[in-house]
Amino acid sequence: MTQQKSDELVKLVNAYLEQLSYVREPKGLYAPIEYVLGLGGKRLRPVLMLLTYNLFHEKVAQILPQAIGLETYHNFTLLHDDVMDRADMRRGKPTVHVKWNDNAAILSGDAMVSLAFQLMLKDCPSECLPSVMEAFTRATLEVCEGQQWDLEFEHRFDVTVDEYIEMIRLKTSALLAAPFEIGAHLAGASKEDVKNLYEFGQKLGLAFQLQDDYLDVYGDPAVFGKKIGGDICCSKKTYMLITALERAQGETKKELERWIAAEQFDKEEKIAAVTAIYNKEGIAEACQEQINRYYDEGLQYLEKVSVDASLKENLKQYVGKLMNRKL
Amino acid sequence: MTQQKSDELVKLVNAYLEQLSYVREPKGLYAPIEYVLGLGGKRLRPVLMLLTYNLFHEKVAQILPQAIGLETYHNFTLLHDDVMDRADMRRGKPTVHVKWNDNAAILSGDAMVSLAFQLMLKDCPSECLPSVMEAFTRATLEVCEGQQWDLEFEHRFDVTVDEYIEMIRLKTSALLAAPFEIGAHLAGASKEDVKNLYEFGQKLGLAFQLQDDYLDVYGDPAVFGKKIGGDICCSKKTYMLITALERAQGETKKELERWIAAEQFDKEEKIAAVTAIYNKEGIAEACQEQINRYYDEGLQYLEKVSVDASLKENLKQYVGKLMNRKL
Repeated sequence: MTQQKSDELVKLVNAYLEQLSYVREPKGLYAPIEYVLGLGGKRLRPVLMLLTYNLFHEKVAQILPQAIGLETYHNFTLLHDDVMDRADMRRGKPTVHVKWNDNAAILSGDAMVSLAFQLMLKDCPSECLPSVMEAFTRATLEVCEGQQWDLEFEHRFDVTVDEYIEMIRLKTSALLAAPFEIGAHLAGASKEDVKNLYEFGQKLGLAFQLQDDYLDVYGDPAVFGKKIGGDICCSKKTYMLITALERAQGETKKELERWIAAEQFDKEEKIAAVTAIYNKEGIAEACQEQINRYYDEGLQYLEKVSVDASLKENLKQYVGKLMNRKL
Repeated sequence: MTQQKSDELVKLVNAYLEQLSYVREPKGLYAPIEYVLGLGGKRLRPVLMLLTYNLFHEKVAQILPQAIGLETYHNFTLLHDDVMDRADMRRGKPTVHVKWNDNAAILSGDAMVSLAFQLMLKDCPSECLPSVMEAFTRATLEVCEGQQWDLEFEHRFDVTVDEYIEMIRLKTSALLAAPFEIGAHLAGASKEDVKNLYEFGQKLGLAFQLQDDYLDVYGDPAVFGKKIGGDICCSKKTYMLITALERAQGETKKELERWIAAEQFDKEEKIAAVTAIYNKEGIAEACQEQINRYYDEGLQYLEKVSVDASLKENLKQYVGKLMNRKL
């Protein structure tokens, strides 16, 4: 069976997105949608869906509507999250509520959800439509639940690691498990294979998010794409901070709590001080350990999928590259 | 065939909504949803869907999930519209963004969309799933397009009657044609019957919205439920105002334009003055004529539906009552 490399798949995805062309009326509704979908990005979720489908079938182009449907929903979540977080920039460009206004961001986002569902339905074989739609709607609800926990954690100082993991399972992993689950359903995979691919995606999602948290502190600014220390600045309760709060004792704990409570501070100073505490408490290593654990657990689920090992290499390579992308 | 009266159907709908009980985690996400769905209302859309289904089948309870799915989406649109319009009150209670905050209104709204789709999928017979989902997603996208036009019309002074009708076709009629279309699909109706029922719903939607515009000026405040003159106060480009602008001449036109341009004014004075112009220009009669025209056109489509005339009486009665509800 011929398998397509991930860079070819990215091209397929972008070509499909371009021909969709949201240049239609009312312009005020569709221009922000075109803008958001045109900001680029790795197209991670559609590529993962195509790679999953490609474990079983050659003609990946058949499921492009569903792949782009998922990408559309993912971009909708970024759009609404940016409004809620009052984020000014996204992928180096002004966010929709900055370039247009809050109403445009809310309403164009709502329309993106409809477009995502329309794409999910498009040319979907009737025998897998119920399972595809069930998986997709479940994932979309979980994302909302995850975002709610994330917002609530901002005002809490007693978030546990378990609570944090459950939050990112909902907010990040749900939409990263979805391409595996939906891709497998579309490929007509067995229940067992669907479940294993879903679990693979879910574990990967956790590993990805923890890696994102790690890179926010220890990443190479030239490669990471965002400013280093953003999470530290706003005292975001990431795995790193929660673990540091658990481990630190005495004066170190007090110092960390002071930085978290501080309302006025020099950003660089706070980043340096909190990073020093992380270094002292071995937080980088602890985080790496978790990342590897989730990644390895994920790969074990992939092993169980009932297709020849050689067919899994393409997907494995892509995922491996992502995991090492900025370390 | 036994048909159920609309008040029994409202009870069925409310009972189903109550047992859904959105008391689940995270509370911050589900509490606003429970609040919004518990504010009541006529449950117009689910009742219309059940009545439509009841033209063909007895066991209307089978399609309660889809009926409530549509009601959930409708309430989501009210929730997000209230954020965009900065409306403080809805059905006599504070809106979600007032009682909670903007983020709660945005995110709980987003979750309602997922819940609406989940309900739409629930126990939906696989043979009508594609058509039900196609009709539903199309309606949801049209609502967003309608809301965008509505927002844009606020800043325009050259809106034509045709543009206004197209706006309310999208913003109001889409979700009023949907219960007819979806109810017919679920009942396994013929293509012809689906189309005629959809057209009936669409015309009804136009008649309802024009009646709402009419009642905003000429309604009985004790029955209407909203304050009289709200549309006049904010110079909303309704059918009434657009037609008055087209008809008025000379000093009357200038006076109307002055009221529209006025930034500071006494509300009661503006309402009285604009209503006087409407009276002079025969706007009430013009609006009633349009309402009757759309209503009659709608009924003609209902006539064509291939079920015995006696079976249509129940639906006709309900719709007739709605049309005369506050005149």
